Amino acid sequence: MAVPVDDRGFTLGDGLFETLLVVEGKPLNWEAHIDRLHRGCEALGLPKPAPIDCLSAAEYAVEAAGPLRRAAVRINLTAGPGGRGLDRPEQPGRGLTASASPIFGPGWPVRLLTSPIRRNEGSPTSRLKSLAYLDNVLARRDAGLRGADEALMLNNRGELACAAAANLFWIEGRELFTPALDCGVLDGTVRAALLARTGAHEVKAGPETLLAADALFLTNSLIGVAPVQSLDGHDFEDHPRLAELSALLADLVPAA
Amino acid sequence: MAVPVDDRGFTLGDGLFETLLVVEGKPLNWEAHIDRLHRGCEALGLPKPAPIDCLSAAEYAVEAAGPLRRAAVRINLTAGPGGRGLDRPEQPGRGLTASASPIFGPGWPVRLLTSPIRRNEGSPTSRLKSLAYLDNVLARRDAGLRGADEALMLNNRGELACAAAANLFWIEGRELFTPALDCGVLDGTVRAALLARTGAHEVKAGPETLLAADALFLTNSLIGVAPVQSLDGHDFEDHPRLAELSALLADLVPAA
Repeated sequence: MAVPVDDRGFTLGDGLFETLLVVEGKPLNWEAHIDRLHRGCEALGLPKPAPIDCLSAAEYAVEAAGPLRRAAVRINLTAGPGGRGLDRPEQPGRGLTASASPIFGPGWPVRLLTSPIRRNEGSPTSRLKSLAYLDNVLARRDAGLRGADEALMLNNRGELACAAAANLFWIEGRELFTPALDCGVLDGTVRAALLARTGAHEVKAGPETLLAADALFLTNSLIGVAPVQSLDGHDFEDHPRLAELSALLADLVPAA
Repeated sequence: MAVPVDDRGFTLGDGLFETLLVVEGKPLNWEAHIDRLHRGCEALGLPKPAPIDCLSAAEYAVEAAGPLRRAAVRINLTAGPGGRGLDRPEQPGRGLTASASPIFGPGWPVRLLTSPIRRNEGSPTSRLKSLAYLDNVLARRDAGLRGADEALMLNNRGELACAAAANLFWIEGRELFTPALDCGVLDGTVRAALLARTGAHEVKAGPETLLAADALFLTNSLIGVAPVQSLDGHDFEDHPRLAELSALLADLVPAA
């Protein structure tokens, strides 16, 4: 499958994506993903795709990938082909594509390093799964080159935001915390589910907060709850609450 | 021409571009564009393409576009096809494509509005012509919806940075000023040429500075020097220095 070289998703990152877990052909947390895609369309000023079109694209991708018990499906929605320059054509187009891939390993516990690359809290795109994901790519690449698994990203004010491909939570006593969206935080589907199900607190906090925490973990729609083993060389113990939280999310991210 | 749907330029904005002016088949300021592309490759950790490959792609695009006395040529360089997720494959690929388009009108004088979308001074990508250009798209779209031609973007510290598709300069008395790169400023080729040829000052400054300026102008490789007619409704007079500066850049951006 291919996209035209003048597709604005390619030339400018003018588009959105969703990554979702598909287990035995069934997309999990589907409505939350479509809702987020639609909210992203509002932020970008793009027409909202019909959920059935997204589902067809996802199903086609799963079929094309061959038998996968557990697949990561990615749906891409773009502003379609465009001429030169930043401005969209008068008659906006649309590009809707999808792909499916196997998921390898649980990928945790995670060794986390603080990234030199900041989240842009001053743009709505920092809350969106947009096709303009280069800061995340560079943050993750830098962490990998320094021997870690993931990058912890702060914003330009120096507040905690999220990881390159996951949201951040921490535990202090009986309480759960996560950075507020306006810190430049990706509006994660599992983050939202955890907030709704646990009453976790959305806060603005500096990185020093984490060193006083009992445990840290990351969330996204493929990994569910992933314990953080270390941050910048500071080790965290396994915490009994993490297994409980995974169980609480088993309908969205069943154990592999 | 098409790019694979798993090209990382498409899925993640993991790539760079250059836009250059081609007059009667001759690319202008070619070395500066290749230099910038190569510096971008260093920042992204991508192998540098041979200039001859870029030139071939550009020439092919110009030929395919048919007779154009004055063309905008865009060269796209990506990290190539990649699997799922943020991490590049072990054997990195490469995507090199180009397209050519006619240039319409001079596009000035410019009505400028300050954008609510900030530049990310905390990431190297704010200095690069990367494929992750969505903030610029949204800033320009917002300005257009409010009746302006271009968006003036500040960074998260509230300092002046640049326009969505151009660099910003201002004149105060005999002196020229432009925001410093580390304010989250795109490292423009015409900006660099003007700095070298005029001794303009690179500064950190707030937006109030502009209201005290004698004139503002924008620069890029297609428009050269474009006078700013108004900023947020504050009008600027035409300034005799602007024609001089255009003449000074005539080898890079000849008059249309």
